[in-house]
Amino acid sequence: MHGVSAASWQHGVVSKQAEESAPARRGRPGYNQATVLRRSVELFNRQGYDATSVGDLAKHLGLTKSAIYHHVASKEALLAAALDEALDGLNDTIDRAVSGDPAHSALQRLRSVVEQSVGILVDHQPAVTLLLRVRGNSDVEVAALRRRRLIDEKLATLVQAAVDEGSLRDDIPPDLISRLLFGTVNSVIEWYRPDGPVDRADLARAISTLAFEGLTKP
Amino acid sequence: MHGVSAASWQHGVVSKQAEESAPARRGRPGYNQATVLRRSVELFNRQGYDATSVGDLAKHLGLTKSAIYHHVASKEALLAAALDEALDGLNDTIDRAVSGDPAHSALQRLRSVVEQSVGILVDHQPAVTLLLRVRGNSDVEVAALRRRRLIDEKLATLVQAAVDEGSLRDDIPPDLISRLLFGTVNSVIEWYRPDGPVDRADLARAISTLAFEGLTKP
Repeated sequence: MHGVSAASWQHGVVSKQAEESAPARRGRPGYNQATVLRRSVELFNRQGYDATSVGDLAKHLGLTKSAIYHHVASKEALLAAALDEALDGLNDTIDRAVSGDPAHSALQRLRSVVEQSVGILVDHQPAVTLLLRVRGNSDVEVAALRRRRLIDEKLATLVQAAVDEGSLRDDIPPDLISRLLFGTVNSVIEWYRPDGPVDRADLARAISTLAFEGLTKP
Repeated sequence: MHGVSAASWQHGVVSKQAEESAPARRGRPGYNQATVLRRSVELFNRQGYDATSVGDLAKHLGLTKSAIYHHVASKEALLAAALDEALDGLNDTIDRAVSGDPAHSALQRLRSVVEQSVGILVDHQPAVTLLLRVRGNSDVEVAALRRRRLIDEKLATLVQAAVDEGSLRDDIPPDLISRLLFGTVNSVIEWYRPDGPVDRADLARAISTLAFEGLTKP
């Protein structure tokens, strides 16, 4: 009995040790790659990507540096994954709209892009925030800026199509319309809180109404 | 004569020495407080305020650290001066509009605030850029955020007055109108270049038209 008991106790200690050493080798229970990404992006947005070391990430996540490297190859791989998350969402939305039902006017498709972009922005707010702060300080950032520029060009083409069909006003240059329209959408990043008083769908509708119909009472 | 001449020469050397030593002690010729502020704000915006040391500023300005301290008491004093520059401009614009000609409707005064805010933003773009990035990491930043909040409250009051007089649409909550309207104005920071193709006055008019009349062709 005493021996068995001692063995059980011993086994218990070993198991506990195995559990405790697991985090150091294989990440922490409950931490997967998605969680590491999400919480890393939080910190990048709070203190800046360049100013954040893998040591800072480890501290923020409550992991060792080697546990982080179990989940991701490098700090830059986290940045690339976050930027892709934001860019894939925006790009898919625009491609769907551009190649959308030709029975819909360019104006209808443009309004749809604006409203769906607000949805992407709200659903992926941390990743989009990171994207909007990218300045091209590394190859990953330069590649993201290139993808962003391609998206802007598709949007500008859709704006131009809406001007050409005669549904958008022609007293503002189409390039400027495009800048202001998506500047308005992106500005939401600065203040929107998912748990705040403004519902996601109401926000999308309000932006679309402001931009296309204007704030003056009809 | 000789004595006088020697004295003159001596005097001349002393003067020249005073001129040459002046830069080390008193900053560099051509550098005054305004130049130091302007070029410091450039660097803060490029690499982040927190990440910029006085040593970095000295290098960027081509001055010694002690020459910088001749011009300004501290890095934080530069931040405070830049934030005040942005906040004073915005605050004065709003105060003028709010207490403006009562013969003008709230809508007219609101449009005027929007257009003049665009002007302030373009004229003081580096300082406003710095202001919009402030997150409250120090007493100076907390004080700036407080002043910014007071400005937002004055704007929200003017928006509410325009809703109350029946000139702004009532299917978007006034708080949300205020957020979106000045989010649109502020988004200009991200892309506007004074030497670019868009004129300052055209920009102000385009934003005011988009926001109040909408992009759909009348």
